[in-house]
Amino acid sequence: MTNDPNGSKVLKDFWLLINSPPESDKKIAKLASDRNASLTKPPGALGRLEEIAIWYCAWRKDPKVDILNPQVIIFAGNHGIASRGVSAFPPEVTAQMVLNFENEGAAINQLCRVAGASLDVHSLNLENPTKDFTKDAAMSSVEFEECLVSGWNAVNQKADLLVVGEMGIGNTTAAAALASALFGGAVKEWVGRGTGISDEGMAVKVLVIEQALKIIKGKHLDSFELLRQLGGREMVAMVGAIARARALRIPVILDGFICCASAAVLEQTKSGLLDHCIAGHLSSESAHKNILSLLNKKPLIDLSLRLGEGSGGALAINILRSALACHSGMATFEEAAVSKE
Amino acid sequence: MTNDPNGSKVLKDFWLLINSPPESDKKIAKLASDRNASLTKPPGALGRLEEIAIWYCAWRKDPKVDILNPQVIIFAGNHGIASRGVSAFPPEVTAQMVLNFENEGAAINQLCRVAGASLDVHSLNLENPTKDFTKDAAMSSVEFEECLVSGWNAVNQKADLLVVGEMGIGNTTAAAALASALFGGAVKEWVGRGTGISDEGMAVKVLVIEQALKIIKGKHLDSFELLRQLGGREMVAMVGAIARARALRIPVILDGFICCASAAVLEQTKSGLLDHCIAGHLSSESAHKNILSLLNKKPLIDLSLRLGEGSGGALAINILRSALACHSGMATFEEAAVSKE
Repeated sequence: MTNDPNGSKVLKDFWLLINSPPESDKKIAKLASDRNASLTKPPGALGRLEEIAIWYCAWRKDPKVDILNPQVIIFAGNHGIASRGVSAFPPEVTAQMVLNFENEGAAINQLCRVAGASLDVHSLNLENPTKDFTKDAAMSSVEFEECLVSGWNAVNQKADLLVVGEMGIGNTTAAAALASALFGGAVKEWVGRGTGISDEGMAVKVLVIEQALKIIKGKHLDSFELLRQLGGREMVAMVGAIARARALRIPVILDGFICCASAAVLEQTKSGLLDHCIAGHLSSESAHKNILSLLNKKPLIDLSLRLGEGSGGALAINILRSALACHSGMATFEEAAVSKE
Repeated sequence: MTNDPNGSKVLKDFWLLINSPPESDKKIAKLASDRNASLTKPPGALGRLEEIAIWYCAWRKDPKVDILNPQVIIFAGNHGIASRGVSAFPPEVTAQMVLNFENEGAAINQLCRVAGASLDVHSLNLENPTKDFTKDAAMSSVEFEECLVSGWNAVNQKADLLVVGEMGIGNTTAAAALASALFGGAVKEWVGRGTGISDEGMAVKVLVIEQALKIIKGKHLDSFELLRQLGGREMVAMVGAIARARALRIPVILDGFICCASAAVLEQTKSGLLDHCIAGHLSSESAHKNILSLLNKKPLIDLSLRLGEGSGGALAINILRSALACHSGMATFEEAAVSKE
């Protein structure tokens, strides 16, 4: 956990960003769109690659640009709710997996290598899990702010693409609780298998979330407060990082359910706050499809991943990189002397 | 066009391959599957990446292997049928695009760069289009065999992954004719927009294919003969290359409709002849979905590409590479001292 001396400055910047986020550059989007139309291919033949290349250019304020420096950040946190038996794995796995990340033995290490991305791992006070959210708010306001600051500060200012991922035994339960509180609907629709919980464990997940929702019912808490009450430190830090990326005009590839449930806090606070984000993949964690639909995000990849760690986002980096490589590297009809229709 | 002095040797090897293709190694598949189960992730959490990694290992006869040397080959051919107005682009674009490939200005060049793949381009007698298939067989038997040999010889024996692509104005019409003849059904179900033809052009595509089907009706031609009658040189060469890859145990990523219609000749000749092939993507050329379903192939990517050139296959290389990187690079639970369920 970062105990940043500039924490109050960061928090000020964070709230400033929430209130006045920079927007995508429409003039650059037009220039990029014109360039796309001039490239040696039938119009539209690169499908969604064309659309995401133009989107990326508009955020980077450059109509012809490549992706050179993607950053993947994993935030790790431990959850009080894990003690209730909501995961197929014991809580010590969070710290063990952090060590695995540091030793380059996890899936995300291999995916970052193939994607040419840097990987940073931030452990957030793993030795002290958040509180069991059926009994108390998961985090104090001070802890919540510290995690926002950690996330904000974790973003490399020189990165040109960001993927945020997470590790935290019990965090599909925290994410399902948050999504239930943010979006309503039947709790069981937000609850999935996580790392592979049994039917019995699924029932416990539903039960603890229903308990938590009873406590906050009628209190009209805002999205950030719901995140503090129900979320985990890694989820708060992801929100901080996604916000910082917006401030820096760094496009973000969202990962799976936990990432998207956390990111939804921003979109629920202010519509459009995730416009700099694209969905990397559709997870097989069952509620991910629903949350992507609510966020109006269409995934780039659908290969039934459900690992977390930023894995689905990292896998999508080379799709976006390919889109920009085509957009910025291809010859125009004129340059190549190719006949048009 | 290759006029290979060893053509007869190659043709002998080709037919030998068709009759006795090497199979995937089941013992290696079991070893790879065991390794997959030992890796630091919840079982199945990498979704289809796990399945394709095991599939790849079994073809390469190595339970722990990376993809180091992918090869993309584009075959280019011109079509007599193009003179009937079946394409939005004029026939000279085939040769112009070959020049564009050689000057690294096309989409496939950029995609190969991001995928770390080599690219080879083979022009097949572009100055002499195949015959209009409504009047005569598209190719003579000698031409057909020369194209098979060209395709066979184009495969780099040291490649560990192959993508075959094509360039040929008019070739969605040739592919639709071939698919109609191979699989039956309404001609219009096999006809799509290609590079972006008008409704009027679509009607011409249906008409010329119906004319061709009338000529061959009742003749009980085998799949290879249908390919000779209706296909293009680049389509025959793709068949030769896919067969050679099988002989060399090099897994293949199939591209879009034209690639798959050509490959279907092998599967229709002998069930299982495409077991070393995986579908790279689902094209927005409308009949591709149907042909993938008939070939029982599930695409890795669905981003509405419809460019040809091997573009969808090349885009999928990094997905498969990522699958193998995880499979072969991750630590096991034991190595990383991570607790299991």
